[in-house]
Amino acid sequence: MKVALLGPKGTYTHQAARNYFKNIEAVFFSTLEEVYNSEINTKFVPIENSLGGGVSDSIELLRNTENEITGEHILKIEHMLISKEKSIEDIEKVSSHPQALNQCNEFLKKQEWEQIETSSTASAVENLEPGEAAIASKTAAEINNVNVLKRNIQDKDNNVTRFFILNHETDKPDKTAMILEPGIDKPGLLSSMLSCFSGHQINLTHIQSMPTRDQPGEYYFFIEAASNKDSKEFKNAKKCLETYTDVEILGSYKQKQWGQ
Amino acid sequence: MKVALLGPKGTYTHQAARNYFKNIEAVFFSTLEEVYNSEINTKFVPIENSLGGGVSDSIELLRNTENEITGEHILKIEHMLISKEKSIEDIEKVSSHPQALNQCNEFLKKQEWEQIETSSTASAVENLEPGEAAIASKTAAEINNVNVLKRNIQDKDNNVTRFFILNHETDKPDKTAMILEPGIDKPGLLSSMLSCFSGHQINLTHIQSMPTRDQPGEYYFFIEAASNKDSKEFKNAKKCLETYTDVEILGSYKQKQWGQ
Repeated sequence: MKVALLGPKGTYTHQAARNYFKNIEAVFFSTLEEVYNSEINTKFVPIENSLGGGVSDSIELLRNTENEITGEHILKIEHMLISKEKSIEDIEKVSSHPQALNQCNEFLKKQEWEQIETSSTASAVENLEPGEAAIASKTAAEINNVNVLKRNIQDKDNNVTRFFILNHETDKPDKTAMILEPGIDKPGLLSSMLSCFSGHQINLTHIQSMPTRDQPGEYYFFIEAASNKDSKEFKNAKKCLETYTDVEILGSYKQKQWGQ
Repeated sequence: MKVALLGPKGTYTHQAARNYFKNIEAVFFSTLEEVYNSEINTKFVPIENSLGGGVSDSIELLRNTENEITGEHILKIEHMLISKEKSIEDIEKVSSHPQALNQCNEFLKKQEWEQIETSSTASAVENLEPGEAAIASKTAAEINNVNVLKRNIQDKDNNVTRFFILNHETDKPDKTAMILEPGIDKPGLLSSMLSCFSGHQINLTHIQSMPTRDQPGEYYFFIEAASNKDSKEFKNAKKCLETYTDVEILGSYKQKQWGQ
């Protein structure tokens, strides 16, 4: 099936989408905005901790477009040392996105390689020269048909990225994302709004305030709550929220745990 | 004075630091982690909406290092078209960070230029070739002694980045940043914690939940509150918070408004 995602091909977004969908015809766009506005119905977008940012852009685009969140997916970031060379002895320089280079600092300190910064991990693999290695995803090595010289060279093993799947099937949704946009701020407003969740025994899994940009000092909130939007308790919490704020439901989906 | 900041020179971070400090001897590091751990006392770091990410990394580093927030600064992002050429007629290609190219989409659509993605806006200016323009900060043009062909080519005029100044003087601080780390989660805990602020008439200006990474499903909160940490009401709110959670105060500083 056709899925819209942020390019270039071979990034961790691409790898995560290939894990999630059994048969995927990935259609790449060069900005997140183009993905969110694409005519391809199903979309796969980073929401947390993506290399090269993403979370604030994704939240803004969820707020401003008509897409429905139907699933989430979590990918553990495993950096591979990739090259056209067959041996690590032949490597003299290494290229990747600055954040990926930084995440492999312990490994790279032991080498005496020149470091080259690229705009994405995937482009580092596409432009490999003799004597050069790139740090990128397994998918980047596979689609460019080049060698993985060493697996899992990241310093820490707890670096994950979370993605949303938009406008697809849902499977036993137990979590709901929403935008709360109260307009004028006043002390205690957030506390009052959150009492609508605690009063109806609903736990929150994510909360983030975002400046509206329309008006200095005006904020909205991106919130994920551990409840299906069609459940009785969520409907009650929503009624309670609406006494304080505009509520925009972004969709319900099945919760995945970090580390699962 | 010496100030540690994220390089390369000529980025919007560099421009913002030059605005904030009258006399600055900027010392550049290649990762945010190196900035936070640097022996140079005063540091200048992006906290919100920086090109190329930053906010989650900065929050993690504030949580894990011994730096004190003493100020904040807000920079409006104004993209310049920069070149060694003297006329826009002579431009055939344009290079910049993918997000900067995207933010100038309306302007670029009217040109028929090849687009080249670079790892930072600053490196695009450093590597300018004949017939090429870069999109970057005014500071990048100044320090590389090249021409600004057109000012303010961004689509929207409301793109700002917020920075923290660490370990410097404070001037009438009226805002406090903190990490709340309750450990085990339970429904209603956040609502209870926030009642400590509303109960003491303290407004929040920012809230963000972050996964601890130690334990799946465990969260901490980065919060900014509109109150000086030495005020009576803040001290009371802190005592209240401590009945629910570990509280780490990151510093007090003077609030700046978006759009000021």
